[in-house]
Amino acid sequence: MAKKLPVGILGATGIVGQRFIQMLEHHPWFEVSWLAASDRSEGRPYAEAARWRLKTAIPAGVAKMKVSPAKPESAPKIIFAALDAAIARELEPQFADSGCAVVSNSSALRMQADVPLVIPEVNGDHIQLIAKQSWYSKSGGYVVTNPNCSAIGLVLALAPLHRAFTLETVMAVTMQAVSGAGYPGVASLDILGNVIPYIAKEEEKMEEETQKLLGTLKGSHIDPAPFAMSAQCNRVPVEDGHTESVAVRLKKKASAEEIIAAWNDFRAEPQKLRLPSAPDQPVVYMTAPDRPQPRFDCDLGAGMTTAVGRLRKCTVLDWKFTVLSHNTIRGAAGAALLNAELLKAKGCLG
Amino acid sequence: MAKKLPVGILGATGIVGQRFIQMLEHHPWFEVSWLAASDRSEGRPYAEAARWRLKTAIPAGVAKMKVSPAKPESAPKIIFAALDAAIARELEPQFADSGCAVVSNSSALRMQADVPLVIPEVNGDHIQLIAKQSWYSKSGGYVVTNPNCSAIGLVLALAPLHRAFTLETVMAVTMQAVSGAGYPGVASLDILGNVIPYIAKEEEKMEEETQKLLGTLKGSHIDPAPFAMSAQCNRVPVEDGHTESVAVRLKKKASAEEIIAAWNDFRAEPQKLRLPSAPDQPVVYMTAPDRPQPRFDCDLGAGMTTAVGRLRKCTVLDWKFTVLSHNTIRGAAGAALLNAELLKAKGCLG
Amino acid sequence: MAKKLPVGILGATGIVGQRFIQMLEHHPWFEVSWLAASDRSEGRPYAEAARWRLKTAIPAGVAKMKVSPAKPESAPKIIFAALDAAIARELEPQFADSGCAVVSNSSALRMQADVPLVIPEVNGDHIQLIAKQSWYSKSGGYVVTNPNCSAIGLVLALAPLHRAFTLETVMAVTMQAVSGAGYPGVASLDILGNVIPYIAKEEEKMEEETQKLLGTLKGSHIDPAPFAMSAQCNRVPVEDGHTESVAVRLKKKASAEEIIAAWNDFRAEPQKLRLPSAPDQPVVYMTAPDRPQPRFDCDLGAGMTTAVGRLRKCTVLDWKFTVLSHNTIRGAAGAALLNAELLKAKGCLG
Amino acid sequence: MAKKLPVGILGATGIVGQRFIQMLEHHPWFEVSWLAASDRSEGRPYAEAARWRLKTAIPAGVAKMKVSPAKPESAPKIIFAALDAAIARELEPQFADSGCAVVSNSSALRMQADVPLVIPEVNGDHIQLIAKQSWYSKSGGYVVTNPNCSAIGLVLALAPLHRAFTLETVMAVTMQAVSGAGYPGVASLDILGNVIPYIAKEEEKMEEETQKLLGTLKGSHIDPAPFAMSAQCNRVPVEDGHTESVAVRLKKKASAEEIIAAWNDFRAEPQKLRLPSAPDQPVVYMTAPDRPQPRFDCDLGAGMTTAVGRLRKCTVLDWKFTVLSHNTIRGAAGAALLNAELLKAKGCLG
Repeated sequence: MAKKLPVGILGATGIVGQRFIQMLEHHPWFEVSWLAASDRSEGRPYAEAARWRLKTAIPAGVAKMKVSPAKPESAPKIIFAALDAAIARELEPQFADSGCAVVSNSSALRMQADVPLVIPEVNGDHIQLIAKQSWYSKSGGYVVTNPNCSAIGLVLALAPLHRAFTLETVMAVTMQAVSGAGYPGVASLDILGNVIPYIAKEEEKMEEETQKLLGTLKGSHIDPAPFAMSAQCNRVPVEDGHTESVAVRLKKKASAEEIIAAWNDFRAEPQKLRLPSAPDQPVVYMTAPDRPQPRFDCDLGAGMTTAVGRLRKCTVLDWKFTVLSHNTIRGAAGAALLNAELLKAKGCLG
Repeated sequence: MAKKLPVGILGATGIVGQRFIQMLEHHPWFEVSWLAASDRSEGRPYAEAARWRLKTAIPAGVAKMKVSPAKPESAPKIIFAALDAAIARELEPQFADSGCAVVSNSSALRMQADVPLVIPEVNGDHIQLIAKQSWYSKSGGYVVTNPNCSAIGLVLALAPLHRAFTLETVMAVTMQAVSGAGYPGVASLDILGNVIPYIAKEEEKMEEETQKLLGTLKGSHIDPAPFAMSAQCNRVPVEDGHTESVAVRLKKKASAEEIIAAWNDFRAEPQKLRLPSAPDQPVVYMTAPDRPQPRFDCDLGAGMTTAVGRLRKCTVLDWKFTVLSHNTIRGAAGAALLNAELLKAKGCLG
Repeated sequence: MAKKLPVGILGATGIVGQRFIQMLEHHPWFEVSWLAASDRSEGRPYAEAARWRLKTAIPAGVAKMKVSPAKPESAPKIIFAALDAAIARELEPQFADSGCAVVSNSSALRMQADVPLVIPEVNGDHIQLIAKQSWYSKSGGYVVTNPNCSAIGLVLALAPLHRAFTLETVMAVTMQAVSGAGYPGVASLDILGNVIPYIAKEEEKMEEETQKLLGTLKGSHIDPAPFAMSAQCNRVPVEDGHTESVAVRLKKKASAEEIIAAWNDFRAEPQKLRLPSAPDQPVVYMTAPDRPQPRFDCDLGAGMTTAVGRLRKCTVLDWKFTVLSHNTIRGAAGAALLNAELLKAKGCLG
Repeated sequence: MAKKLPVGILGATGIVGQRFIQMLEHHPWFEVSWLAASDRSEGRPYAEAARWRLKTAIPAGVAKMKVSPAKPESAPKIIFAALDAAIARELEPQFADSGCAVVSNSSALRMQADVPLVIPEVNGDHIQLIAKQSWYSKSGGYVVTNPNCSAIGLVLALAPLHRAFTLETVMAVTMQAVSGAGYPGVASLDILGNVIPYIAKEEEKMEEETQKLLGTLKGSHIDPAPFAMSAQCNRVPVEDGHTESVAVRLKKKASAEEIIAAWNDFRAEPQKLRLPSAPDQPVVYMTAPDRPQPRFDCDLGAGMTTAVGRLRKCTVLDWKFTVLSHNTIRGAAGAALLNAELLKAKGCLG
């Protein structure tokens, strides 16, 4: 077996950083060789620095690994980044500038014109944008991003419809899990027995990211998809899994059977390339009238499959349905990991 | 002080029946004199027959009251009905036929052409339909209904907009509390840490009831309001309070200030008549960016006020906002009680 | 009506500070005239500085009040203190030294020999200790404390038994609400669908405070009650109300009837003096086999009554039972308020 | 590979029945060949008859299997029983009488003198009692039971201490998950944000089963262990995993190190025999001060390991600690499965 590629994790102690570590534990191509977090964690063994919030144990090798300073000097070439936006905006360019392939989950650079925002099943061709980045020409480094946890499930459900029937209008209302807010994140006094109808900047991200993801590569930028898109975002007392009530209008009229077939038959490059983290089926339509549900269905396809259900006619637009996606797997760490796998398969990781 | 009018409660042991008893405890006009429930409860003291699920104690007089058979013979003239739809469909006509004023929370007869579906602040004039009911001409009895718990908060928020700006399109996604399903209702294994994207028949009710409520009385029937209306209903792990993410298109364009003023200034007959259960302000706009929230705001106006918040532009329709309403007070028992108060004020309770 | 006494609140923005404000809104003797919190809040209107987490609205007068620096210079004589222990240890002596009557909910000074730790129904005589405090002789200032939120419900349930039958052994296991940890306090990711079997220093506090509260005033200190006492503390996903599974051994054997009568008949000085916040019945025995329960019973006596239930034989000690007490009312703000009322009734507030 | 033994499941549609099916899906020795449930399910495909409440999918073969009548005629020799006690009391003897090896999770016959109540790591020798059963001599059939879900975790934690140091006194307070009550089980309106301090007959079961499990086989009955044992049982809003606050007095004094070693070193027959469902380590001591916690730790050892933590001195008895065990795996289906594996290893399954 070929030697695994060493990877680093920026923001390793947070909830998404933990998911990276969990998902990389048995990864066939990558292995964690470097961890960085905030100053307060620096120099401490990871198991001490992180408040581990996952059900599986910290991998033994990682547990003892010392947390490094968040500087590019000692870092490996491949960096998974799970930083808060404000910090990412400062650090990610430094790492790219130093020649790192920064595979980022942060929102900081997602909407920058020359930064690809990628879901490998949807718009893998957008990674060509990296060649337009100034870092790339200078050092070979670059930044590739994945979308917000609430956008990715939606876009996976929309992509097959957009390809086959062309979207005209999309309205989405989310019911998002608390793990999406990181740790400590949402206070229990705020969310026990409650709904919070507001997540800062989330609606804006969902709207603009959806249009960029389904947009078209035009030389050095992306033309956003031209459909109208409106999002409303709510937090609910659920641990993992973002549920969304969606309504769409399609240019080309379609039957329920055609729409369901579009979802279930949807396969793309990651499936053809058999990327290690790619689910066999990116989108699964569930036929039970009351599914998908986050507690029962968010682990479908090891958390990488988007579940769709309840397709029915809409009296305002054309169709209504429910979408569910695991927010810290497909919506964060798994998204970035699949991006890295695509980059490797395309020869972008050297 | 005038003697209080005796009232009976059909379905007295359920969650809504309990709310009736709680809200009637200190009522200035009505007093509970008769309780009926299923056969299994018959003849038992109420405190034994009911599994009381409210924070206040069972009123002492009611606790000892024997549960009567659900038959009109012994019943008082005014009946609050909180029955399951299938049973209501059978029993409510029997009581109306015997001369009772049946003020019902059940969905059974809501959409029947000659049965008024009423929110006193919105369409009090619809109660004139009772004169068209065959029971009325025969015995003076009739049935008046209130809407579904998910429709009533929405319609209270929509009514001021419809009056001032005329609704063209309404889309609503609900996040509904478990108390809306009665007791035992939703199993804890189904809802802890979960969202259920399905409530049987709820979306249909919301859509058709909203249009009837905002419709126009035309002789012996109601012309439904002509706007397009689409609903998606979800259950969330919240005890009380239905939250809704709503988007609307208005015929007459309006500014945010005008819309908020329409809500805050909204007053109607119940407020003018100073009906005992009428809130001072039926709709309150909350300015905090993350409100309303069910755990903190559903008791506004003793549970009779609808809270609205987060008004913002919609990129698809015109405006988006969040609505919150207490589902077993304004959405059930309080709704019926206010209907009864309106009937009394209008001289329909003899 | 006599003019109300002005009172200040130290730590006004926290969860307990909020409860003080809520409980003082309509208080017949006291009115809030001064609010202090951390530096970051200083100078801001209270409504902006606090993240209000209660169901009732911020009283209008308080909402606009500017938050003062936490210094005794501008403070009124009567100070309710709701500070973290570390800060309280520093600030409370400063206020007492300046002549303030500091009525504190903090744990900082509770176990100091000359500081009374008081539940008015249980050991009101301990307030005589204030005359032994060095602050008192210097400036007339002093500190009076109330117990930890998990100790107070237990001690109210134990006191009648200790008086009548003498406790030999007490074992208590708590299931504590998240509001006991303040705000933001417990992260939702830590407690949703979970139990945390650990609350820092809580078991030690429960054990030593219980023995001081039921102890005997001996000149300038308290002889702790001589019974053996062991506590285990757990956090559960409940908003308000600490539930405790308790077992006791009594010196004088008693029947279930005698024990229940001891609880239900328990009245003390606050009831005789008709202190405004004193519940009519400090301890209520609930006869239903599955009560008390926090969601339904923690508001008994406006949150000032301790509920007890499930008395049954213990095969190891003598008796087992369940205790429930509202942790931020009787367990914090209400406890301090009742202490202040007792101080006023005894002429200690000048 | 040897052909797998066919097994049947009585009560296949309930929560424990579902766990049996899940755990048997890839079992090396057994395969499901027969499913029975209540009359209403009879003749329907399993996937329709059951309301599946687990995260993994229904095994394809089982999904289509028709539900059989609950009669021994068509049943295989090995029967896993997950019936309500009242039904089990009637049906289990019928199956044993017909020659079946009934491996039961029900409480119905657990305390019958000639019925072994077994945890393979603790008292595997008790299975010899089956030879004393009248069914056995008649048809070769018998009944073997496993303990209540709240007793099994406790006894696994107690057994190493009892062996090494001899228990004198045990006090346990449970915080039990809702899945322990089956489906629909606990209503969400009863448990959201709440604690229910009562589970019918649970305390009695915990006390008597613990003493039978740790008792001594004396010919045709079990002498219960002679220590004093007291239990208090509570329901909390947790999906899976029973947490217990335990205190013990030991005859032979032991240090914390000795006790922790007793737990971590505990191995027994199932580990020596390498039974397929036996965890490598039946009891694990967790050193973090706030563990074990049900949401994070109940899947240890695939749900078959009991986690212990927080060992500390008790001021009343000797030691206090927290125990956690998965209630539907180790506490129900996994318990019975391990019993069946022990029976097979000992040649009792023919």
